[in-house]
Amino acid sequence: MKDVAVIGIGQTPVSEHWDKSLRELAGDAALDAIREAQVAHVDSIFVGNMLSGTANAQGHLGAMIADWTGQRFTEAVKIESACSSGSAAFRAGYLAVASGDIDIALVVGVEKMTDSPGNEITAALATAADADWEVDQGVSFVALNALIMKRYMHEYGWKGIDFAEFAINAHANAVYNPYARFQKPINENLFINSAMICDPINLMDASPIGDGAAAAVLIRRDQLPASASKILVAGSSSATDTISIHNRKTPLWLSAAEKSAKTAYEQAEITPNDIGVFEYHDAFTIMAALSLEACGFAEAGQGPALAKQGDIKIAGRIPVATRGGLKARGHPVGATGMYQIVEVVQQLRGQAGETQVPNPTFGMAQNIGGSGSNIVTHILKREN
Amino acid sequence: MKDVAVIGIGQTPVSEHWDKSLRELAGDAALDAIREAQVAHVDSIFVGNMLSGTANAQGHLGAMIADWTGQRFTEAVKIESACSSGSAAFRAGYLAVASGDIDIALVVGVEKMTDSPGNEITAALATAADADWEVDQGVSFVALNALIMKRYMHEYGWKGIDFAEFAINAHANAVYNPYARFQKPINENLFINSAMICDPINLMDASPIGDGAAAAVLIRRDQLPASASKILVAGSSSATDTISIHNRKTPLWLSAAEKSAKTAYEQAEITPNDIGVFEYHDAFTIMAALSLEACGFAEAGQGPALAKQGDIKIAGRIPVATRGGLKARGHPVGATGMYQIVEVVQQLRGQAGETQVPNPTFGMAQNIGGSGSNIVTHILKREN
Repeated sequence: MKDVAVIGIGQTPVSEHWDKSLRELAGDAALDAIREAQVAHVDSIFVGNMLSGTANAQGHLGAMIADWTGQRFTEAVKIESACSSGSAAFRAGYLAVASGDIDIALVVGVEKMTDSPGNEITAALATAADADWEVDQGVSFVALNALIMKRYMHEYGWKGIDFAEFAINAHANAVYNPYARFQKPINENLFINSAMICDPINLMDASPIGDGAAAAVLIRRDQLPASASKILVAGSSSATDTISIHNRKTPLWLSAAEKSAKTAYEQAEITPNDIGVFEYHDAFTIMAALSLEACGFAEAGQGPALAKQGDIKIAGRIPVATRGGLKARGHPVGATGMYQIVEVVQQLRGQAGETQVPNPTFGMAQNIGGSGSNIVTHILKREN
Repeated sequence: MKDVAVIGIGQTPVSEHWDKSLRELAGDAALDAIREAQVAHVDSIFVGNMLSGTANAQGHLGAMIADWTGQRFTEAVKIESACSSGSAAFRAGYLAVASGDIDIALVVGVEKMTDSPGNEITAALATAADADWEVDQGVSFVALNALIMKRYMHEYGWKGIDFAEFAINAHANAVYNPYARFQKPINENLFINSAMICDPINLMDASPIGDGAAAAVLIRRDQLPASASKILVAGSSSATDTISIHNRKTPLWLSAAEKSAKTAYEQAEITPNDIGVFEYHDAFTIMAALSLEACGFAEAGQGPALAKQGDIKIAGRIPVATRGGLKARGHPVGATGMYQIVEVVQQLRGQAGETQVPNPTFGMAQNIGGSGSNIVTHILKREN
């Protein structure tokens, strides 16, 4: 490992971009990353996206974005693994550079969701679940997460309010992120009084969709200019679990998160204690809790305790969602994994402003596809 | 190059599989490949697929197929680049093994198209073109190819009948392929009298859709058992062109085919003369002609001459579509690239039966996404 470095990053605000098409969003983020990387061209492009075929009547994003970003003729494909498409694309870019076949890869995650009617997006998001055994029974994606959360609360004795701190922390950090969809704080009172979406998930347990794109340029370490900051890929791993929840021994343990995180720790030769910042996948507060547990930051069933103790704050033991997380930065699904990468790079470079974690060496990003069925974990390292 | 070998292959017949779901098709091909490879597990799975989100209400094929094939927890993603998704997945698998990060990759291309109404499939296929600048103007995918063919005939003076031999040759070879959708010969009379689909493309110029899956297991060369046949990836390259045809200097030259083939020849250290068998992308007869020209087998505008001279037959200078090609084996879009790989492996191993090319050392597969906008070329080599 550590043969591949991140040399440039870019992102658009997560918002309702009525004035930007899918290609413009992707282009804005990609061109920012290329400009920052100061490279004339890239060898390969990897696009993370989940829904363009269903929500935008547009497939074939690789060719479209290669052309749009002025990289005509450059190799380009789309990578999809539901909501972890962004980080799966980053991993594909990492593998391509690590193979020695190419020197420079552009990875861009993009999603445009707010042009489509809500019921169409709900149906499109449900393609992350099992069409035959889950969706055909009438279960939506939020309903699957609600079933998991309900069981978790029953099993470990937590109440809905015990998950509030995940959302409050995310919003507190997003106040200082100009790219976040919601740049305002929330409090416990607002959490308690927010509308129930699908019991026990209320509006503040759930992350908002949005339009957005985030990008990074990867380069072989030996081609990194001396002046560039050394942000290296120290761990990259991905694992699946059953696509249907009912096929798992327990729905309350993210085996794919544990497996991919464990491999990434081994690759980076560290333990969870070495992680200075963790951009986790808080699509729902229950996923925040399960991710912290599976990655070794809390015992099974004790994720909410971590949040309630303040351990997840910027000054806490394991700062999470430092730029707002999915909850407040927003969750443009196929782009989210790349927002996480961009945010970890910002933290390692010391560019995170008011929510800067003091001097982190290792940052982790974990992106969850489906109801825990495809999880990608990356560890980035700053070398001096 | 040549660090990665193909150790197992599998395929289902291309057909209307009313009795098989998407996962069953993928599973059948994948398990055959795994069985042939005699490996207990694989490290990563790459799924080539174009339309599952739109045509099957199912995304997230990576997790689904990992679980279904008994490879639970294994890393798995879907790769999409329109009709070249299959070979793009093969290239992703190649890069992953070449990176040294993993030892064994399973690649499976799968598509299930015949469950959906024809107009829905026509709309889904059009997502390979530019939604804003082509599809919104009312152009279907076959219409784009018809525009190219019309211009080609005008420019070079060919008539519709001059393309007949591409189709006749494909059907003649498919007679001996039990996996082909149409295992019967056609003749010039049938070609002349077939219905016009979109002038000048008639029914026999066009390849049929279908359901099917094809798979291969890739392994690091140093892990190949001594007893296994040595089929190595000697060239792997991919290139894009503008997604919209109107943005190209000329629609009559496949720059992405030329670029990817040239790179693959260089990697394999050969010239077109060394290619013993060529599985090309004859989605339409015009694409067969353009592919032969861009890859160096004919001068610009002279592809049909090659066919008319008999050079593309099994005993000819450059045998193509030796198992039926897209035209007669069938074109389950996201699976097609993997069928081509499987067929080249069969030829190199000497397993192609009545349509075996005598003793080829190099075989090439070229898979075209969109109207020439994403083209992947692989060269496989048999070593003794």
